[in-house]
Amino acid sequence: MIYIVRKEHFNAAHKLFNPSWSKEKNEKEFGVCSNKNWHGHNYEIEVTLKGKLDPESGMLINLKILSKILKNEIIDKVDHMNLNMDVPFLKDVITSTENVTIKFWEILDEKIKSLNIDCKLHKIRLYETPRNFVEYYGEK
Amino acid sequence: MIYIVRKEHFNAAHKLFNPSWSKEKNEKEFGVCSNKNWHGHNYEIEVTLKGKLDPESGMLINLKILSKILKNEIIDKVDHMNLNMDVPFLKDVITSTENVTIKFWEILDEKIKSLNIDCKLHKIRLYETPRNFVEYYGEK
Amino acid sequence: MIYIVRKEHFNAAHKLFNPSWSKEKNEKEFGVCSNKNWHGHNYEIEVTLKGKLDPESGMLINLKILSKILKNEIIDKVDHMNLNMDVPFLKDVITSTENVTIKFWEILDEKIKSLNIDCKLHKIRLYETPRNFVEYYGEK
Amino acid sequence: MIYIVRKEHFNAAHKLFNPSWSKEKNEKEFGVCSNKNWHGHNYEIEVTLKGKLDPESGMLINLKILSKILKNEIIDKVDHMNLNMDVPFLKDVITSTENVTIKFWEILDEKIKSLNIDCKLHKIRLYETPRNFVEYYGEK
Amino acid sequence: MIYIVRKEHFNAAHKLFNPSWSKEKNEKEFGVCSNKNWHGHNYEIEVTLKGKLDPESGMLINLKILSKILKNEIIDKVDHMNLNMDVPFLKDVITSTENVTIKFWEILDEKIKSLNIDCKLHKIRLYETPRNFVEYYGEK
Amino acid sequence: MIYIVRKEHFNAAHKLFNPSWSKEKNEKEFGVCSNKNWHGHNYEIEVTLKGKLDPESGMLINLKILSKILKNEIIDKVDHMNLNMDVPFLKDVITSTENVTIKFWEILDEKIKSLNIDCKLHKIRLYETPRNFVEYYGEK
Repeated sequence: MIYIVRKEHFNAAHKLFNPSWSKEKNEKEFGVCSNKNWHGHNYEIEVTLKGKLDPESGMLINLKILSKILKNEIIDKVDHMNLNMDVPFLKDVITSTENVTIKFWEILDEKIKSLNIDCKLHKIRLYETPRNFVEYYGEK
Repeated sequence: MIYIVRKEHFNAAHKLFNPSWSKEKNEKEFGVCSNKNWHGHNYEIEVTLKGKLDPESGMLINLKILSKILKNEIIDKVDHMNLNMDVPFLKDVITSTENVTIKFWEILDEKIKSLNIDCKLHKIRLYETPRNFVEYYGEK
Repeated sequence: MIYIVRKEHFNAAHKLFNPSWSKEKNEKEFGVCSNKNWHGHNYEIEVTLKGKLDPESGMLINLKILSKILKNEIIDKVDHMNLNMDVPFLKDVITSTENVTIKFWEILDEKIKSLNIDCKLHKIRLYETPRNFVEYYGEK
Repeated sequence: MIYIVRKEHFNAAHKLFNPSWSKEKNEKEFGVCSNKNWHGHNYEIEVTLKGKLDPESGMLINLKILSKILKNEIIDKVDHMNLNMDVPFLKDVITSTENVTIKFWEILDEKIKSLNIDCKLHKIRLYETPRNFVEYYGEK
Repeated sequence: MIYIVRKEHFNAAHKLFNPSWSKEKNEKEFGVCSNKNWHGHNYEIEVTLKGKLDPESGMLINLKILSKILKNEIIDKVDHMNLNMDVPFLKDVITSTENVTIKFWEILDEKIKSLNIDCKLHKIRLYETPRNFVEYYGEK
Repeated sequence: MIYIVRKEHFNAAHKLFNPSWSKEKNEKEFGVCSNKNWHGHNYEIEVTLKGKLDPESGMLINLKILSKILKNEIIDKVDHMNLNMDVPFLKDVITSTENVTIKFWEILDEKIKSLNIDCKLHKIRLYETPRNFVEYYGEK
C-alpha cells in the first residue's frame, strides 16, 4: 500500500459571498475576502492516490496519467478563471477553500473510480496561500 | 469532516539544557545545541483544525479567528523571546522542539475547546529548521 | 554602500485588457490573462533600498519603517482588491506586472525621498507567480 | 506519542526500464523517463520516526543520530550515483520513486529496530521533484 | 528600461569529466561529480530580458513567447536527457553549470536578437541545486 | 566573466543593542529585536564569486572549495552561537544584518584574495528571515 502525490497550480479570482446574507453580514463574516470586485490567488493543489504497486511497472500509476486527469478535469476549468462566475461545478457554492476542495474531490474521485485501476483517491490538499490550506479525505 | 491549516512564524533564542545533568553530560547529549550563550531559529508552526463545515459560511472556521488565537496565545508569547527564560509556560522545560510542540498543544487545545464550536485541534507541526520538525496529534 | 530588502505579499484580482483594442485583439494578445471575469494572484513584492549605514544603529533603515511604508502606501491599497477596478493609481493602466511595478516605484520613490534620510529606492521586484516576475530600477 | 522528521537530499541519475519489456513498450509506458542515457534528479527524503519522549532529554531521538543513520545507510550509497547501476540494493529493481522508497524503508526499518530504542520508523516521503512524490508507511 | 524574468525547470543526468585528464585527475578535481555512471539534477533556469515597455500592451514581451522560446530552444533539448551524451550543443563541453549556462546564453541571445523586438537577453541564472547556481550576463 | 553562488545556513542568537544608548532608547529604536534575553534566526548566506572560467575544468572555482572556505571562515564560527557574545570578529559590533554582512565580507574578501586565483568576491546576501535580507558588494 503506497501513496503517490502530484502537485499542480492554477491562478483564479474569487470572493466569499453568501447571497442569502445582507451586504453587512457578508462583510462582517468574510472581511476583505468579500470585496465585491473580487481578489485572487495562485492556488496549489496536491492530489494523493493510494493503492498497490503494479510489479511490472514499479508504479502505482504513471504520474503523466494523473497529471493529465488533473489538467482535463480541474486545471483547464479553473485556471485564469473566476471561481464564482466561470466554473459550472462551483455555481451556487461559496468559493471557500473548503468548498472548492470538496468539489474537486467529487470530480476526481468519480474519474479515478472510472479508470478501474487498483488505486483510489486518498487526499486532496488545496493551498489558497502558502500559509492557508485545506485537506480533505472524502470523510462524511 | 475537513481539515484546515494555518501557518505562522516566530523568531526565538533557546538552548537544550538539563539542569540535573553535568555540563559534560549536557554537551555530550545535546552537542552544539547546548551552547551556554544560546542560539536561535526562525520557527514555523502549522496548526490543523478538524471538524464539519458550517454550510452557511462554507468554512470550518474563519482563518482570521484561528490566526488571532495563534497570535494571542502563542506568537505574542514566544516571538523575539528566549524560550528558556522569557516564556512562563516553558519554565522548567527542556526546550526541545518536541516539548515546545506539546506545550503549544496544551494551550491551543484548551483554547479551541473553550470556543464551543464544531471543530477541534487535530495536529501541530513545528519546524525548528526547514529540515528538522516535529508533529503532534495530542496522543498520550 | 549597502542594500536592504523587505519582501511583502498581497492577493489581488486583475485582467489584461486594452480598451482601445477589439475583444478579439485582446484575446489574441493576452490569451487567458484577458478572461473578462478576472483571474488573480498571490503577488510578492521585494523592495530594495540603497544607502549608507547609520553607525549609531548599525542599520541602513529600520525594516519596521520600510515595512510600515509598504503597508500604508502599497499593501493596504492593493491587498484583496481588483487591480483594474479598486486601485486609483492603476486606473486607466493595463495591469501587467511591468506597469504595476512602475506605478509602485513612482509611489515608493516619492515617499522615500520625502523621508530625507540617507538612503534611496534601488529596485522593486514583483512576482506575479513564482515563475514570472519583473524587476525595475527606475531607469528611463 | 510524538513524531519527528528529518529531511535530507541527494542527487542521482536513473531511468525507468523493465528489461523484460521491448524497447517500444518501455518507451510507451515510461516515456521520456526511459531515455536510455539516463536523466536525474535532486531527490529530497523526509523520514518520520514515532515514539515516546525520553523525559530526561525531552527528545524522541537526537536528530544528529537520525541524520547520521540516514547518511550512512542511504545518502552515502545513493548521492552522486546512478540508482540503476551503482546501488547494490536497487539492483534488478525498476527505480521508480515508489520502489526506491520501499527499499529505503526496508533498510531504515531494520536499522532503527536494531537500535532498541523506544521509537520506530513511521513514514518515508521521497520527492523526485517538488511536484512528484511518494509516501510509504510500511503497509503491506 | 524594465527587466522581466521567466523561470523554467528540467531534469537531466550529467558528469564532470575532462577526457584529456587521467581518471585519477578527474576524480581529484571533480570528486563525486565525476562518478563514471553519471548523477543528475532538477535544474532551474531563470532568464531575464531587458528593454522598453510596449505602451500598447503594457508588456516588455508576452511571457508566453519567452516561455515558448525556452521550451523549443532549451527545455525540449535537455529535459530528461544526459547533458554529456544527448545534447548536440554540449558535445565536447565539460558540463559544469558554468559551461551549460554559457551555451544556453549563446543559443538564447541569437534567438532573441532574431526576433527584432525592442528587448534583449540580460541575464541567465542556472540552479544545479537550490544551493549551487551560476549567473551569466554575456560578459567576455 | 561569470558569477557563481554558494548558499549556506547557520542558526544563531543575537540582539540589537547599542551600549552607549539608554535602555529606553534601545527599546525605542530596536523594538522587540532588543529583548535583553536574546532571540534568534535561521540565517542563510549566499556568496557570489566573479571571474573567468578555467577552460580546463570548465569551472570558475570548485564549489567544494568555496563551501569549505565558508565552513571554516564563517559557519563554524557563528553556527549555534550567540553573535553578540561568542564571535570574536563581532565583538563591539551591533549585530544588525547589515553589520554582520560587512564583517563577513571583510573575512571572505581577504581569504579569497589570498588564494591567488582568477576570481574575486562579488556579493554577499544575508537572509535574517525569508522576508528580511541585506546585500553587500564591498562598496565604500
